[in-house]
Amino acid sequence: MKAPELGIEIGLHPHGKRNSMADLGVRVGHSTIIEGEDVRTGVTVLLPPVKNPYRERLFASTFVMNGFSKPIGFIQVEELGYIETPIALTNTLSVYTVANAMVKHMIKLNPELRSVSPVVMECNDSYLNNIRKLAVKEEHYSEAVKRAKLDFEEGSVGAGTGMSAFEFKGGIGSSSRVVEIGGEEYTVASLVLANFGRREDLTVAGVPVGLELRDYPGRGTSGRGSISIVVATDAPLTARQLGRLAKRAVVGLARTGGYAYHGSGDVVLAFSTAQTVPLDKEAHLLSFLPDNALSRLFRAAAEATEEAIINALLQAKTLEGNGHVRYALPVEKFLGIMERYGRAGKA
Amino acid sequence: MKAPELGIEIGLHPHGKRNSMADLGVRVGHSTIIEGEDVRTGVTVLLPPVKNPYRERLFASTFVMNGFSKPIGFIQVEELGYIETPIALTNTLSVYTVANAMVKHMIKLNPELRSVSPVVMECNDSYLNNIRKLAVKEEHYSEAVKRAKLDFEEGSVGAGTGMSAFEFKGGIGSSSRVVEIGGEEYTVASLVLANFGRREDLTVAGVPVGLELRDYPGRGTSGRGSISIVVATDAPLTARQLGRLAKRAVVGLARTGGYAYHGSGDVVLAFSTAQTVPLDKEAHLLSFLPDNALSRLFRAAAEATEEAIINALLQAKTLEGNGHVRYALPVEKFLGIMERYGRAGKA
Amino acid sequence: MKAPELGIEIGLHPHGKRNSMADLGVRVGHSTIIEGEDVRTGVTVLLPPVKNPYRERLFASTFVMNGFSKPIGFIQVEELGYIETPIALTNTLSVYTVANAMVKHMIKLNPELRSVSPVVMECNDSYLNNIRKLAVKEEHYSEAVKRAKLDFEEGSVGAGTGMSAFEFKGGIGSSSRVVEIGGEEYTVASLVLANFGRREDLTVAGVPVGLELRDYPGRGTSGRGSISIVVATDAPLTARQLGRLAKRAVVGLARTGGYAYHGSGDVVLAFSTAQTVPLDKEAHLLSFLPDNALSRLFRAAAEATEEAIINALLQAKTLEGNGHVRYALPVEKFLGIMERYGRAGKA
Amino acid sequence: MKAPELGIEIGLHPHGKRNSMADLGVRVGHSTIIEGEDVRTGVTVLLPPVKNPYRERLFASTFVMNGFSKPIGFIQVEELGYIETPIALTNTLSVYTVANAMVKHMIKLNPELRSVSPVVMECNDSYLNNIRKLAVKEEHYSEAVKRAKLDFEEGSVGAGTGMSAFEFKGGIGSSSRVVEIGGEEYTVASLVLANFGRREDLTVAGVPVGLELRDYPGRGTSGRGSISIVVATDAPLTARQLGRLAKRAVVGLARTGGYAYHGSGDVVLAFSTAQTVPLDKEAHLLSFLPDNALSRLFRAAAEATEEAIINALLQAKTLEGNGHVRYALPVEKFLGIMERYGRAGKA
Repeated sequence: MKAPELGIEIGLHPHGKRNSMADLGVRVGHSTIIEGEDVRTGVTVLLPPVKNPYRERLFASTFVMNGFSKPIGFIQVEELGYIETPIALTNTLSVYTVANAMVKHMIKLNPELRSVSPVVMECNDSYLNNIRKLAVKEEHYSEAVKRAKLDFEEGSVGAGTGMSAFEFKGGIGSSSRVVEIGGEEYTVASLVLANFGRREDLTVAGVPVGLELRDYPGRGTSGRGSISIVVATDAPLTARQLGRLAKRAVVGLARTGGYAYHGSGDVVLAFSTAQTVPLDKEAHLLSFLPDNALSRLFRAAAEATEEAIINALLQAKTLEGNGHVRYALPVEKFLGIMERYGRAGKA
Repeated sequence: MKAPELGIEIGLHPHGKRNSMADLGVRVGHSTIIEGEDVRTGVTVLLPPVKNPYRERLFASTFVMNGFSKPIGFIQVEELGYIETPIALTNTLSVYTVANAMVKHMIKLNPELRSVSPVVMECNDSYLNNIRKLAVKEEHYSEAVKRAKLDFEEGSVGAGTGMSAFEFKGGIGSSSRVVEIGGEEYTVASLVLANFGRREDLTVAGVPVGLELRDYPGRGTSGRGSISIVVATDAPLTARQLGRLAKRAVVGLARTGGYAYHGSGDVVLAFSTAQTVPLDKEAHLLSFLPDNALSRLFRAAAEATEEAIINALLQAKTLEGNGHVRYALPVEKFLGIMERYGRAGKA
Repeated sequence: MKAPELGIEIGLHPHGKRNSMADLGVRVGHSTIIEGEDVRTGVTVLLPPVKNPYRERLFASTFVMNGFSKPIGFIQVEELGYIETPIALTNTLSVYTVANAMVKHMIKLNPELRSVSPVVMECNDSYLNNIRKLAVKEEHYSEAVKRAKLDFEEGSVGAGTGMSAFEFKGGIGSSSRVVEIGGEEYTVASLVLANFGRREDLTVAGVPVGLELRDYPGRGTSGRGSISIVVATDAPLTARQLGRLAKRAVVGLARTGGYAYHGSGDVVLAFSTAQTVPLDKEAHLLSFLPDNALSRLFRAAAEATEEAIINALLQAKTLEGNGHVRYALPVEKFLGIMERYGRAGKA
Repeated sequence: MKAPELGIEIGLHPHGKRNSMADLGVRVGHSTIIEGEDVRTGVTVLLPPVKNPYRERLFASTFVMNGFSKPIGFIQVEELGYIETPIALTNTLSVYTVANAMVKHMIKLNPELRSVSPVVMECNDSYLNNIRKLAVKEEHYSEAVKRAKLDFEEGSVGAGTGMSAFEFKGGIGSSSRVVEIGGEEYTVASLVLANFGRREDLTVAGVPVGLELRDYPGRGTSGRGSISIVVATDAPLTARQLGRLAKRAVVGLARTGGYAYHGSGDVVLAFSTAQTVPLDKEAHLLSFLPDNALSRLFRAAAEATEEAIINALLQAKTLEGNGHVRYALPVEKFLGIMERYGRAGKA
């Protein structure tokens, strides 16, 4: 269950219908790889709501909170202000394999293509996964694409399979927020691959849950946390404005106990589904919100990211692998703590 | 009183002896300007622990969370990696006057000087202050320098005089943290000029204090928040590493309810007091911590900044000016809320 | 005379009618300050073709090639993507005085103003000017504004009064280029405050003029060169695109012999006169060129900047001051060199 | 033959013994792939002079002149300030395959490795190469590593096999410069993968060679130029200082006629061989040059890059592929033009 279903309110803005990336029409697919004792990894793909992302480019930007990370494609997004592929998530050493698969996917779709810039982000799952085995193959990307749907799973699936957060089981989480600007409703959604944090740092809606669960078993870090965050909105924003939005995801991250420790590569990609980037040679009319209308979107990006991280924890399941075990956040205990700190538990 | 004296614990690391910038030998001076009905402003100066900052340059870096701000000197600090002047804070429209005063100060101190790059940061106090009157004069800078001392005041003084935070009275706050790395103790301190936030955003040690005080009187925003943050440490860091440290101040900001709204110029300067930058023409031996030793310093920067913001609120006093009134955070009510949310009030 | 009048062709694109910033309707005004033996400085102001720059904001961006510089306002331009004031140039230590004058100018024009971000750029004229005297006063800014016109002077005037370039007399230079994109004509203009370079580096249309004039008298550097460059266009570009354009000014700079030495603060501001930035709260329709139409504008920015630097040299006049003398580039000798290297001299 | 052997002098500083990357002990290996009618591509690897680059990390930084590019690893280099792998060059769509091969190479060398950040840069050779065939395989990387040596080939080899520059045959070029600072000699070397420019832009030592060869046959662009530049030095520099050095490579690029057109991804990586980055947990003593000693290194980086580009042209050979032909720069004609413009031809 996600936070709201457990009576945990994060932020002030209401969430969207599905409380996830799906509220923007983004379909998400997973390929989960569990093999033998030591392979626990996977691939997650986000398909923006366009038929051919290479031809229907979407405005985008990035923010790097801590660049101890290997994101693919960020340099070009920063220069040109758009994405031209799906967005994939996987483990640290597999971004190149996934990028390769994405290149082949785009080549097949676009006979004229001679250059393309895949976007792949990562976290390091080497606590539960023998990352040196390079278990992710190109077909896992294709599988994830095929399985993409609006009512996608969260938690220990796809790229989230082997991830840890706050020394609990981490993985994929998503959430969305709806705000009103000048009479129009806009949605901001966040999807995270959460794999960061020390136990005592975990903060849920302000409550020091991690401190309270300090002695709950299963501690131990691989020393290589990270979080990759994707923010999407249907508000018409320029690339520059999306860069501003991307930065606010970090506000949500901080509120859960994300300190961006040295070893934690914390990166954000933001894109807008509102309009496609003109490719031909004439001036194009585009619609944009003025910057002084953006504050609600900024708060929404922070809130959605904060909840997405908690949702990852709430939906992940205990997993053993690679000689370690990661326990799921113990929900009953967690709700007890929330209540003790004056936060309503489940209705 | 500062947070710890009220029994409010923020973060896990212990604070330094003075729980402020002073723990690094940085002296702070204020010039408070209150004139007639509508002038409520001032200047605050930070003097790093060197005799002549132009000759004893200190490694430094910056981070711009939201560049709707007018900081002076950041471009050069980013390029050269050092500061060569004191650091001053004042209101938005007065940074140029204060920078001018600082130039004259440095000219007087250094007969050979033909170029110097002042560092001045700002927030917009136009809610309580008639900022259009440009009440800050060069002599206010000199006065602040003269008054600089280790046991400096915080709250509604100096540059903090007319500032608001979370629709309460804001201003100057400081805090420090001590961490141990490889057997050595290092201190990180933060000093903030806090002038940002909507009432409902205020979060203290995770408790939604602002939501609870939503209906407490005195609301109303000038629409121009901001926060300027100075982080200092005695850990030997390169400019690149100080840039990493500066970013973590934003983690502390976020945890208090800082969403970096469009109109809020949120900027950070970080410097190290550990060693001076070599100026002559030969290679110099310098000592640096490796990056993988920095995580505790990162957490310390976040914690010190989080507490510094709360300390600004706790020490500011109700003030009228410019046709408005800003109430101080009502401490008794505040402590009651903290207790209700399971946080010990004062013992 | 400017380069084309001497038969010197720089680049492939034709220049605009006035071969200067004036081709974009930008008026330029100078205040030249020559006092006693040692004051040789001034202020130059660029007035974009709008009535009130604070209300008719123009898209803009910056590029910092070498941040050993004190530009005012760049942080905010990068965040918000527009300028909201005129642009001024002056000496290094006087940017704050000029910014102050600009604040007062904008306050007077705009009764509602409570925040404004002046844009002022600088070079260090301390070879010919006793910069420590701080001879620039606020009235010099006002004087420059009053004198602004389309057929403005170049060379040793205004901010250019005391500047040196390649150990010759430098100062203000401008040039423009016209390109055709998709059937439309667009103009790109550059205006430089040129104060950089060692004698042997000077390159004109590829000819090593500086090497040839190595032994021409008057050598000697203050050790503090710099160049401030303003690029303007009437092409409809976003802030991100203007950032790309700004970078190409450095191509022109490099082709004249600009190596961006350590002590040379080389910075660029670019803006578009095509449309104003929407300030109110609804989405606005704006027109933009697609990025793949920008290459000609990029070349034009490089060419206009390359020629603007040479035009500064060609129009500057020998000047004594502060115990030094800077000779104007000796035009006859220069044309002889150009001819010897296969470049047509004056027809 | 390289430029100096043809009597073409570029810049003022003397070149190193081998006039290439080899002067820094960097070994370079190529794998050239020529198959059938349409495959003309390859891989080039640079091996810094350390035994195990993952354990003997070298200070490094990057500069992105035009981010229409897919460099791998730049985000982490910017954050941490070092490289921890060899550096590879290949075609645009093959960077992921080469990065994968490099990951496996590093895994094999380092049993403890669970995270590594490969550095791979690219240009688009789709004019002569059927890039959609993805002809580069992981074994080509291994082959290039095996063949690495100090007296490496330049021109149409390795990654340079299918590249074009100025509508002539392009490819790999290298050059070095030696400068003296404070009594010490330091070397700066540049190696480029040159694949950019329109014919008329080509400028050699200031001479408009491209204009003169405008009508020489073989024109036609794929519309996707680019240049990837690697700069190395044995001067002891911090990562921040190496970022400054990287920027100056663009000065050399500009002087050859590089305008950084929209479609040209122009990126630079710079590293220092002077000392390895400390990995353990105590403060380390490191030696650095002060910033005010860097100007000669800056000029050297510009000069070496300018010559490296020309050296790529001079050593490349006419090649057919993919239905196109790229002619080598016609050396006799070229020398004739140089002479006509007053530049000594071959002695």
